Amino acid sequence: MEQNNTLANLGESESLRRTIGKLIQGDYAIVGPGDDSAVVKSADGRFVVTTDTMIEGHDFKLEWSSGFDLGFKAIASNVADVAAMGAKPTALVVAIALPGDTQISWLEDFADGLNAGLTQLAPGASVVGGDLARAEQVFISVTAHGDLEGLEPVLRSGAKPGDILAVAGTLGKAAAGLDLLQSDILDAKHAFDDLVSIQLRPMPPIPAGVLANKAGATAMLDVSDGLAKDASRIAKASAVTIQIDKSALLGFEAVLELAALRLEVTPTNWVLSGGEDHALLATFPEGVEIPREFKPIGRVLESTGDLVLLDDVELQANGWDSIRG
Amino acid sequence: MEQNNTLANLGESESLRRTIGKLIQGDYAIVGPGDDSAVVKSADGRFVVTTDTMIEGHDFKLEWSSGFDLGFKAIASNVADVAAMGAKPTALVVAIALPGDTQISWLEDFADGLNAGLTQLAPGASVVGGDLARAEQVFISVTAHGDLEGLEPVLRSGAKPGDILAVAGTLGKAAAGLDLLQSDILDAKHAFDDLVSIQLRPMPPIPAGVLANKAGATAMLDVSDGLAKDASRIAKASAVTIQIDKSALLGFEAVLELAALRLEVTPTNWVLSGGEDHALLATFPEGVEIPREFKPIGRVLESTGDLVLLDDVELQANGWDSIRG
Repeated sequence: MEQNNTLANLGESESLRRTIGKLIQGDYAIVGPGDDSAVVKSADGRFVVTTDTMIEGHDFKLEWSSGFDLGFKAIASNVADVAAMGAKPTALVVAIALPGDTQISWLEDFADGLNAGLTQLAPGASVVGGDLARAEQVFISVTAHGDLEGLEPVLRSGAKPGDILAVAGTLGKAAAGLDLLQSDILDAKHAFDDLVSIQLRPMPPIPAGVLANKAGATAMLDVSDGLAKDASRIAKASAVTIQIDKSALLGFEAVLELAALRLEVTPTNWVLSGGEDHALLATFPEGVEIPREFKPIGRVLESTGDLVLLDDVELQANGWDSIRG
Repeated sequence: MEQNNTLANLGESESLRRTIGKLIQGDYAIVGPGDDSAVVKSADGRFVVTTDTMIEGHDFKLEWSSGFDLGFKAIASNVADVAAMGAKPTALVVAIALPGDTQISWLEDFADGLNAGLTQLAPGASVVGGDLARAEQVFISVTAHGDLEGLEPVLRSGAKPGDILAVAGTLGKAAAGLDLLQSDILDAKHAFDDLVSIQLRPMPPIPAGVLANKAGATAMLDVSDGLAKDASRIAKASAVTIQIDKSALLGFEAVLELAALRLEVTPTNWVLSGGEDHALLATFPEGVEIPREFKPIGRVLESTGDLVLLDDVELQANGWDSIRG
């Protein structure tokens, strides 16, 4: 590691030149990075916008996540929020603050992770602007944009009694990956690197968001804080009760069974309370053709107090709180 | 200060409820805060987007800036970047990370500052989404959006030899305010609270951005890192030399004269190298009617190496570097 390749030594302009130059071009940027602002196409006449922050020590540890991992995850977690509106991701801006002694190679690796996330999850979208600053703690703040392409946004508040509850993507894998990383059981994380990988580089089913919208989804969100907590958000916003079919979760538990045995836990908590897979949870009117990316896992009932039920048992809305932890 | 009114005690949902509830409504939000994403009108079919980060200890000190000040400044510095494209600010998303022992009243004060910044600088625009997280250091990351209303964006790269260089807003006041805050001369900062106020709550001339665009400005940016450094950015992007007329800066220096005397410095450095006033620096073709918000201060010459000259003397592009400081 050469002392003169730190960000503090290179300064802002040179550090940006070396990383922005790596970023892939997208289909929506009219003016890209380098001016006071970017200019982005929004043919629909509306745009979707969401922001999310990742903070060292709270949302990630540098000993577990490489620059590449964090770049990938920054894309994944934000485009999932765009997809959850039933929109197509188009453009992102990325602000990152790093200690001055960070090597430029770390930042270049981060840019590679951004590119990989875009290519794999949101082809056509690109990073159109950003900000690089210095801090004692690593701080990553991303704002993502999307295009509704003439469709109406799918809110959390549209679920109706009788609707089918369905999920696209994985449940509990990211939480299992986190427990594996935190475990001191020898080699546990290497034995289940597919789960660790979902924690470090989540793979939300982004195109399923638009498909759900086209199929007539009445409500949707991305599961970032756990199935129970996020289902309760739909229940509350829509003033309904949501009943999850316990047997429909068995498939999600089965793929976690071996890792759960190794860590001597049951996989149910991972599936019900684990966030960060960024699965899409949606409700569909009965009788519509639900896109095959979605697996039905329950049903929307008349409100009996904005509850979430697992079969007939009330679930507590446990999950991640970004302030309390 | 009650222990139970800290963010850690209230948690994310309640802290957000108390602050988001205070935010003013704008003219552009179709879906506001509370869902996975917001939805914003962009009738133009394009939108302008910019992001900027403020970090405790690097960009501000909590002993100098209140929550209100930081909310106001977060709006000001970002809508200035929208204005510098010749666009009208429409919508912002705000991510903030705070220590868990922060009082909720601080965050409510921050929300009041956001509202004041919007009302005074960008009426019609609003905060449409955000993120609240926990960190050891205060981080504020804002992304601002704007509408070009059918006009073309004014880039940094369009300045042509023969153009007039002109500035709207103040130069050096924020830098003088910073030196006053840092000074240990008794009462210096109270004697010049108008300058301190510009440092804490900048007042960029936002509507002048659209006016410059309509008048035919060929290049524009907001002066965030100092006149010399930001003029050199236009010179470089446009491949021209920029000549600043020293006598045209006398008016900017005059209003700083008394404060400079008190601190025993000359005001010239403040005017040439002080950032954070977020004045708009633009170039206009000779003969156009320059909006009266803009004061001519120089001229664009054929390139002799992308220089900035003060009369006939080459200026070094000194100014703020967000990594080096």
